Amino acid sequence: MPDAVLIYAASSHDANLLYKTRFQAGDPIIYIEAGGKSMLVLNDLELGRGKSEARVDEILSMSAIEKELKDAGHPNPMIADIIVSVFKKRGEDRVFVPATFPFELVDQLRGKGLTLTCRREPFYPERTTKTEEELGFIKESIRFTEESYACAEKALRETEIRGNELWWQGAPLTAERLRRVIDGYLYENGLLATHTIVACGEQGVDPHCRGFGPLHPHQPIIIDVFPKNLKTGYVADMTRTWVKGKASPELKKIDAAVKAGCETAFRTIKAGVESTDVHKAVVKTIEDAGFKTEVIDGKPQGFFHGTGHGIGLDVHESPGMGKRGAPLKAGMVVTVEPGLYYPGIGGVRVEDDVLVTKDGCINLCTYHKTLEIP
Amino acid sequence: MPDAVLIYAASSHDANLLYKTRFQAGDPIIYIEAGGKSMLVLNDLELGRGKSEARVDEILSMSAIEKELKDAGHPNPMIADIIVSVFKKRGEDRVFVPATFPFELVDQLRGKGLTLTCRREPFYPERTTKTEEELGFIKESIRFTEESYACAEKALRETEIRGNELWWQGAPLTAERLRRVIDGYLYENGLLATHTIVACGEQGVDPHCRGFGPLHPHQPIIIDVFPKNLKTGYVADMTRTWVKGKASPELKKIDAAVKAGCETAFRTIKAGVESTDVHKAVVKTIEDAGFKTEVIDGKPQGFFHGTGHGIGLDVHESPGMGKRGAPLKAGMVVTVEPGLYYPGIGGVRVEDDVLVTKDGCINLCTYHKTLEIP
Repeated sequence: MPDAVLIYAASSHDANLLYKTRFQAGDPIIYIEAGGKSMLVLNDLELGRGKSEARVDEILSMSAIEKELKDAGHPNPMIADIIVSVFKKRGEDRVFVPATFPFELVDQLRGKGLTLTCRREPFYPERTTKTEEELGFIKESIRFTEESYACAEKALRETEIRGNELWWQGAPLTAERLRRVIDGYLYENGLLATHTIVACGEQGVDPHCRGFGPLHPHQPIIIDVFPKNLKTGYVADMTRTWVKGKASPELKKIDAAVKAGCETAFRTIKAGVESTDVHKAVVKTIEDAGFKTEVIDGKPQGFFHGTGHGIGLDVHESPGMGKRGAPLKAGMVVTVEPGLYYPGIGGVRVEDDVLVTKDGCINLCTYHKTLEIP
Repeated sequence: MPDAVLIYAASSHDANLLYKTRFQAGDPIIYIEAGGKSMLVLNDLELGRGKSEARVDEILSMSAIEKELKDAGHPNPMIADIIVSVFKKRGEDRVFVPATFPFELVDQLRGKGLTLTCRREPFYPERTTKTEEELGFIKESIRFTEESYACAEKALRETEIRGNELWWQGAPLTAERLRRVIDGYLYENGLLATHTIVACGEQGVDPHCRGFGPLHPHQPIIIDVFPKNLKTGYVADMTRTWVKGKASPELKKIDAAVKAGCETAFRTIKAGVESTDVHKAVVKTIEDAGFKTEVIDGKPQGFFHGTGHGIGLDVHESPGMGKRGAPLKAGMVVTVEPGLYYPGIGGVRVEDDVLVTKDGCINLCTYHKTLEIP
């Protein structure tokens, strides 16, 4: 008999739950695996939709269980009572829950006799290797993302350099405007990008700065796009760094080192390889190119993040590919995204998504990586 | 000394964390209130942005704390060690966490000597009453939502009835197309609507059905829009039910009963009143109009959900206004959204957002409630 499982979450924010049920719910729902069956316990509002949409073995009515418990003498059954009653009826009292399982229910469920054990990510290890259907969804998200880069590149090519300013369609080109070009194109095509990074110059040194205000010529602009397809739920995750105008010789060297890092990853990634070893190889390539990673005045610089991570229903999922990782398997889709960041110069990050295969990897991204946009 | 508090969550999905920090983070971050100060513990990637954006007393560097712990002989400090070290240094070991606090850390933190207690929603009771700034943000979201209804109404007015079909701009008008009109307008204006409901006829009987496929004349179309302003984080939540063409006499009676329910709520809502009493009054109005609520063949029908709920950074927040609730306070913003749903006829729901005042309430929504669109 497989392990019993309990998830209590809104599937719209919980990829494991969406993965197992394919049922989109914005409020928390109860998902249970017990006695070899998967089931959702839904309130009356969700019952009809659940029956027609959810890919589970059984849909249980929360109000019916509530009524049963009341009929059996329970004055005011709560969520924890309902959960326990489902497990007890199926003879289960040892239950695995995800790391994110809400504290609210922990002591209540334990008090009612359930033994809860945390099963860490990957909660469903099979989620890390993609089916053909899932791979198709990821490729579709990548295709739209690449088209959104084409929109952004077109805008940058149309842009005029006026001194230290960039002008496009009669107004200064800002991070916000370029982001709207990208996100707008994606949204029209059913993909949602909520945190697209367009970070110019010094802003790019802070890899989580989304970027704001006027963009400038001759400086690196990091554009990191990771939209979610609203229908399938699957994401893409890509980054390009562009300079409108001329890159300095120093920046060109940084860019070359980052791209050499990408090539090292492409050569190293293969089923059976430890993802931490891929990262080590990329770190070495970048160091060998003469670029140090250190903390100066409390500010980290150089290549101070991981080489990549899995993507799928989440933008960040197993396996990690940095200081911590896992053995790579055929069918995994991981990002390759080395970066270098130096105050006074700016940041360069380049990111593709690759499919791990038995013999190596296949780059799913085809968009060019040229630094300068004329 | 105030209570010590711990939140570990991604603020982009955690309204309490966003409320206290005003710092948008897509990955989990550590938020602590201890020794009378609020603080964020951030990794190197978020440190710079945190220092410039977060409204907290202190920003702590996770890597600096890690280094301290290593220097003190800890071989491999994890998140739980870092959290405990921050509390211990400030002489705190009794900590309140939200209901959603992740299970992963519970036993680890307890094992290291912290006493965790769940503080239920409202975690920050002050979140339920809105400041002038917050009210302004909500009004702004409502204004754009009403403009999106105007776009949808314009499309419906332009629509032609051909037999049992609706035609607009040379093609059948579908739920998807009308949703795109609404969501597209909102997105262009910086608001994100991800689960807009456009549910025609029988689809509307299932209040959580988003709606799909061709819309039809002479049937109720429930349009429920609850977008989030991506900049401020504040939502609006409105519903209108429209019939393109002619409503049946039966449907008109249902519509009148729902609107009478709204009026009852508007008359009843007032600081000091129990929100459950508002709901009871609305239920009575609808029953007095002759509409029953019951479960037939396992399918609930009638008015089987609450009258409303608070809105703010979340679409659903305290106070509830149904079978469970809380005393209303001046400054709360709650929805008023009775509905009636009957298989074979369809659903009618009408929803406004109101500000609770000392003397009653102010309806923040002004969009008309006419059922038929010619």
